[in-house]
Amino acid sequence: MDFSELIKIRQSVRSYTSQPVEKEKITQCLEAARLAPSASNSQPWKYIVVDDEELKNKVALATFDKVVKFNKFALQAPVIIVIVLEKPKLITQIGGEIKKREWPLIDIGITAEHFCLQAAELGLGTCMIGWFDQKRIKELLNISTKKIIGLLITLGYAPDDYALRKKIRKANSEIISNNKY
Amino acid sequence: MDFSELIKIRQSVRSYTSQPVEKEKITQCLEAARLAPSASNSQPWKYIVVDDEELKNKVALATFDKVVKFNKFALQAPVIIVIVLEKPKLITQIGGEIKKREWPLIDIGITAEHFCLQAAELGLGTCMIGWFDQKRIKELLNISTKKIIGLLITLGYAPDDYALRKKIRKANSEIISNNKY
Repeated sequence: MDFSELIKIRQSVRSYTSQPVEKEKITQCLEAARLAPSASNSQPWKYIVVDDEELKNKVALATFDKVVKFNKFALQAPVIIVIVLEKPKLITQIGGEIKKREWPLIDIGITAEHFCLQAAELGLGTCMIGWFDQKRIKELLNISTKKIIGLLITLGYAPDDYALRKKIRKANSEIISNNKY
Repeated sequence: MDFSELIKIRQSVRSYTSQPVEKEKITQCLEAARLAPSASNSQPWKYIVVDDEELKNKVALATFDKVVKFNKFALQAPVIIVIVLEKPKLITQIGGEIKKREWPLIDIGITAEHFCLQAAELGLGTCMIGWFDQKRIKELLNISTKKIIGLLITLGYAPDDYALRKKIRKANSEIISNNKY
């Protein structure tokens, strides 16, 4: 399908069936993520595929609590992807220091979206999750306390009746201008 | 074309012909960028399309100097896109403070890659540029000194003989693991 169609069917899926995700589909999504561009081609990421049910449920439980509950749907997803930020190349680190920029975060956005778009094309649902208990997930997955987890992505099949929502976005006039701000 | 093909033809293009970019193609790329997902759907971005030749050249000159010259190709691009970070929704700001995360940078990566993938599908070349003189570009485009410019993207047609490069990426074993780091 055309890219303009693909971006319309990709949406945050917050409800999943128990249908397992085929290994080869996970592999395809990871390959799309692996081929993503990054500043100085640093590829400052590591993907952890959490598909062990018990462990996955523990990770899901670290995305919500009694107060902030909007990620509760994560428990339904058969797979959770955990993206860990890695150090970029030295040149990117130095450049980032000089320019006071955190390019690896931009890179994480790019690679995560590659993953989600590929998943959408394969008929899978995803949702990026930025709200989670860093400390708890590091303990669960044996991630060094020095590392930073960039994002989680839930992965699975949406129920058949899960509707494609119309995208609510700012108008062009709010976000686009010509030759000046 | 399939997404897996599209990500293979998208590459950083660092050489451009003088062929102008059709307005409707720029519009299509901006639409792909506009529809990108973001934390809490904040869409914390503003796109400035710089296509006035004189101004565009001044912006290009702010991406390199006598020491750091790797962005000199920006002068050839007929269009430069400037992405300005905007404040996210209050809930994202508060969440970001609590979790000490800069979600808008992740969002900028997502939307910028939507732009570049759409451009690639339309036969256009792009290159994201993270190294530039913030202060100078803000002056040129009348951007408040309080704002932060996230990224620049060069846009144009690559020469006919511009080769599609093989992607050099880390091996799966370096970036993927199962159920633990």
